Amino acid sequence: MSTDFPHIPTPDAPTHRETVARHLRLTKPAGSLGRLEELGVFVAACQGQCPPRPFARPRVVIFAGDHGVAAHGVSAFPSEVTAQMVSNFLAGGAAINAMAATAGATVRVLDLAVDTDDAYPEAVTAHKVRRSSGSIDREDALTDAEVVAAITAGRAIADEEVDGGADLLIAGDMGIGNTTPAAVLIAALAGAEPVAVVGRGTGVDDQGWMRKAAAIRDGLRRARKVSANPVALLRTVGGADIAAMAAFLAQAAVRKTPVILDGLVSGAAALVAEELAPGASEWWVAGHRSVEPAHALVLEQLNLKPILDLDLRLGEGTGAVAALPLLSMAARVLAEMATFDDAGVSGRTIPLPELKVKNGGWR
Amino acid sequence: MSTDFPHIPTPDAPTHRETVARHLRLTKPAGSLGRLEELGVFVAACQGQCPPRPFARPRVVIFAGDHGVAAHGVSAFPSEVTAQMVSNFLAGGAAINAMAATAGATVRVLDLAVDTDDAYPEAVTAHKVRRSSGSIDREDALTDAEVVAAITAGRAIADEEVDGGADLLIAGDMGIGNTTPAAVLIAALAGAEPVAVVGRGTGVDDQGWMRKAAAIRDGLRRARKVSANPVALLRTVGGADIAAMAAFLAQAAVRKTPVILDGLVSGAAALVAEELAPGASEWWVAGHRSVEPAHALVLEQLNLKPILDLDLRLGEGTGAVAALPLLSMAARVLAEMATFDDAGVSGRTIPLPELKVKNGGWR
Repeated sequence: MSTDFPHIPTPDAPTHRETVARHLRLTKPAGSLGRLEELGVFVAACQGQCPPRPFARPRVVIFAGDHGVAAHGVSAFPSEVTAQMVSNFLAGGAAINAMAATAGATVRVLDLAVDTDDAYPEAVTAHKVRRSSGSIDREDALTDAEVVAAITAGRAIADEEVDGGADLLIAGDMGIGNTTPAAVLIAALAGAEPVAVVGRGTGVDDQGWMRKAAAIRDGLRRARKVSANPVALLRTVGGADIAAMAAFLAQAAVRKTPVILDGLVSGAAALVAEELAPGASEWWVAGHRSVEPAHALVLEQLNLKPILDLDLRLGEGTGAVAALPLLSMAARVLAEMATFDDAGVSGRTIPLPELKVKNGGWR
Repeated sequence: MSTDFPHIPTPDAPTHRETVARHLRLTKPAGSLGRLEELGVFVAACQGQCPPRPFARPRVVIFAGDHGVAAHGVSAFPSEVTAQMVSNFLAGGAAINAMAATAGATVRVLDLAVDTDDAYPEAVTAHKVRRSSGSIDREDALTDAEVVAAITAGRAIADEEVDGGADLLIAGDMGIGNTTPAAVLIAALAGAEPVAVVGRGTGVDDQGWMRKAAAIRDGLRRARKVSANPVALLRTVGGADIAAMAAFLAQAAVRKTPVILDGLVSGAAALVAEELAPGASEWWVAGHRSVEPAHALVLEQLNLKPILDLDLRLGEGTGAVAALPLLSMAARVLAEMATFDDAGVSGRTIPLPELKVKNGGWR
């Protein structure tokens, strides 16, 4: 059945050790590149190759979908913005387009559940599950058949990307109202109270914040009953976009492809993905720490230390793409730097006091 | 006289205001790109143009020089490594080469005071002041004529770069022992005790740390007498490389060119540069927070908030180059994103609660 994931392998341990050792031979003081060294070890271990190949095809996939709960005043923007932003992505006018171009990544946009009559190119709607998802404070987000369709779509999308040569994946989100189901999923899986996960999203005022808190409270009451079953959780309080994203993140790990996580929505999908496919998180790094309060719970649950902390709260994959050049640098340092022997550079006259790069240190 | 800098202009205030306003019209929730928005405003205000031009020629200039104090056991590496690393930079095998290439920057290496018989290309030695600088724990780093020569060199180098089209400058350091004079300069200007500024540099052991602490104590005793005069301070406890770097950073501001500061040595030079040319720091952002304890004093004195915090302690400009893609993204977001009107994206249905981007917010 398509919602059952195979056993997830770990990144390659011998390559991990070999890369830690290679860092000590490169022409720099041991450990002096700090977290960049750890990120380089992560990339090499994912590829099973030391030195790692510089990324050839980093890809951002945006999962767009509307959410019924947006009709109940939980967002500062109207639902029509989801469809308008899909057109904006396709025209290259959104933040993720400018940022991905700078980082050398390409962007793919998919309508999983946008509530629109707009006619997008067939490539955009190929994996569409439905128009909008149910209002999770009062009804299920998806039917049994729809949640299976969304998970199947997410896995297929990851397979398409990896088969197409993608060697680094980023999942971006677009959907007015989507921080409400994301917060519910996080609270359900982290065992948190509603007040700990309510954020301002795109910038709701105090009245909107109270409506959002109430919707999260009601959604969470419905979620608690199914929180031990990740597929049922996505059906009850997720949505087609988030379910597909969770499956995409899990399938990236199946396909041994490293992922940079973005913020709140990507984090909620990641928490569920780790339930769908335990061990998938070994293939992910956290691009940044979001302003959204529930994101801290994601980082804690997944034991991930964010690379950046820049007060971002946009989504679309922007916080992951912002960190991509650092991963690229980390890989190229290992691939391109000379060793002490190669360059004829003298080593230390004082012995190395301690090894600064720890196994698993990127976490 | 070449050590007198002209009045430093501020980045353009009307452009600053115009860029803050432009951010509100771009297709994203107001303030949702956090510090990236502030960095974009900084770039635009430096250029006096909204939207800013994406960087055409970001440049890293490495100031290489030896330090007499290295003979007294303050570093984990022997002095000959400075010359060997200059050759490594020229061959493209150092960390800064791989990282700058990823960020789209080019690297220039200059021998200001390397203690070597190696024959470098003339372009590398064109601004050479002397072989090594004096051991600052017991003698002046430079003569009166040499400090003037080094400052003149630093200004000329900045002028050459800006005249050559550089629109973003980074000063990198290379010099075994250079964290000792850097720590003394910082302690002298921040009014700190030696113990607050002694770091591990390239990784000295406890014995080396004690020798370094003693050298800093002795250097600081000599520095205190001249700490009100930045030129005398550079002559007494700086060095030709650091003096040239300080003048380069000040002259970048004279030439209205933005700078990303690196870590400890670049920070020490920056503190002195702000004394040489008050207001120069308005043209700088801090690329990262170094592991070196004295670097925190630099950030505090200059009121700069680092972009990255990745446990780096390499120098060469690596911590600044690591942040360069984020500045590039910040500029391209302003230059390339559609506005709500352009893209036909609906605005907020709930009014904006507060303006998130503050004037001068990048500091």
